[in-house]
Amino acid sequence: MTVTKSQVCVRYAETDQMGVVHHAVYPVWFELARTDFIKTIGMTYSKMEEMGILMPVAELTCRYRIPARYEDELTVETYIQRITPARIVFGYRIYKTDDPEQTVMVEGTSTHAWADANLHPMNMKKAYPSLYGQIAELAQ
Amino acid sequence: MTVTKSQVCVRYAETDQMGVVHHAVYPVWFELARTDFIKTIGMTYSKMEEMGILMPVAELTCRYRIPARYEDELTVETYIQRITPARIVFGYRIYKTDDPEQTVMVEGTSTHAWADANLHPMNMKKAYPSLYGQIAELAQ
Amino acid sequence: MTVTKSQVCVRYAETDQMGVVHHAVYPVWFELARTDFIKTIGMTYSKMEEMGILMPVAELTCRYRIPARYEDELTVETYIQRITPARIVFGYRIYKTDDPEQTVMVEGTSTHAWADANLHPMNMKKAYPSLYGQIAELAQ
Amino acid sequence: MTVTKSQVCVRYAETDQMGVVHHAVYPVWFELARTDFIKTIGMTYSKMEEMGILMPVAELTCRYRIPARYEDELTVETYIQRITPARIVFGYRIYKTDDPEQTVMVEGTSTHAWADANLHPMNMKKAYPSLYGQIAELAQ
Repeated sequence: MTVTKSQVCVRYAETDQMGVVHHAVYPVWFELARTDFIKTIGMTYSKMEEMGILMPVAELTCRYRIPARYEDELTVETYIQRITPARIVFGYRIYKTDDPEQTVMVEGTSTHAWADANLHPMNMKKAYPSLYGQIAELAQ
Repeated sequence: MTVTKSQVCVRYAETDQMGVVHHAVYPVWFELARTDFIKTIGMTYSKMEEMGILMPVAELTCRYRIPARYEDELTVETYIQRITPARIVFGYRIYKTDDPEQTVMVEGTSTHAWADANLHPMNMKKAYPSLYGQIAELAQ
Repeated sequence: MTVTKSQVCVRYAETDQMGVVHHAVYPVWFELARTDFIKTIGMTYSKMEEMGILMPVAELTCRYRIPARYEDELTVETYIQRITPARIVFGYRIYKTDDPEQTVMVEGTSTHAWADANLHPMNMKKAYPSLYGQIAELAQ
Repeated sequence: MTVTKSQVCVRYAETDQMGVVHHAVYPVWFELARTDFIKTIGMTYSKMEEMGILMPVAELTCRYRIPARYEDELTVETYIQRITPARIVFGYRIYKTDDPEQTVMVEGTSTHAWADANLHPMNMKKAYPSLYGQIAELAQ
């Protein structure tokens, strides 16, 4: 199974008055990590959008264990949990980059429908068999 | 069971290049709706923070059915799904304010730990029995 | 001169660890206030975009006097500072809604180029004389 | 004059339905670039906050020339425009990292008051002469 690692440095604007990263920021980091993941097959999400492949988010789950703070250097690990012709589920784990034990601070999943340029559902395996195959291979 | 209704008008900054509201925005709306919910007991979340009661988000789930768009007038319904001395789970449903059928566009939950000013877990029922009782009543 | 008033209630996500509203949030409020302003001529910005009229921001200035805080109820006043066939400049003033003296907390301007659907500059007065006239009247 | 270069890769959440980066995002990038700038004197903004030195934004200006787009790799150049015991003004220039001509897409300034932990104005030169000297040197 392919697992990519993306680096994030916490921005001031991402904190809230509790002194920690606001919980709605993590899905944004998941998204940039997903973008990096897709690059591992020599593809970019921009190119996919140009080809008419959209991946609207159908479901999101997020579990917060330890809050991240301003200027923390974080690693976001990304992997495919499940892929079908209709959907793809990514999993994420976030920990401090300098933490040798990689204690998970936040983890989550995002489920995406394969959709065409009009946001209509699409059988990805039929529509783009080769690309689908390449992505599915990363889940193994 | 008490269900509050909060009004949201979609901001331009909340859209993304897919032409719809970015999925990380809905948790922000859940939060403002939760703020309104707490006002129904004559309390504000600001006052709770001053009293040393924090409600960090422990879990978030979000299910996206129909995308909202710029300038949409939306209603966010909020209710308590479950409350214990350690945790409280809010549920949310979003639909267009002018939709007579109130077709749910996005729904979700947020689970919060009761915590003190240092973000340490707190038995809310023991620490603030009266306030706990008032909130628990809204779940009935 | 037409001055509109928009209401904003500060969201938790809009605060930062300084305990006040993050400075990048005010331009977002300016924008929703601008949206309200445009509605005063029975137009919406959504409709303008459909007609092929875009208003990309060319310049932004913001002066921060008093920080806003979580749950503050604010009024954003909006007016046209200047309008030409090539550009429109909006001015904004923010104060607490319940402040009888309307002490300005933050003020600013945004300068917009009139542009077509491809983001190319457009002579608004020539392209849409009637709409231009209506908007220009609000500046008087 | 010291000029630092920070790298930014445009996030999907940072785009809006115009298909470009939302204008309120650039001040967030200015801020992370400023954070990097401060690191050049072996200091972090986190440590400054712990020491009781805050730098609330008093003014912001931003000039938008060419819109950035999703997945663009950008460089944010940061330098000190002016420093006094009461204020510091940073300047910023953004261009595509792979653009040999470094055509400026967006540029701006942020003016900060030196403030103590209670957000009260502070004479930085008197309060922290050594740190002030170090920072002032970067402006030369």
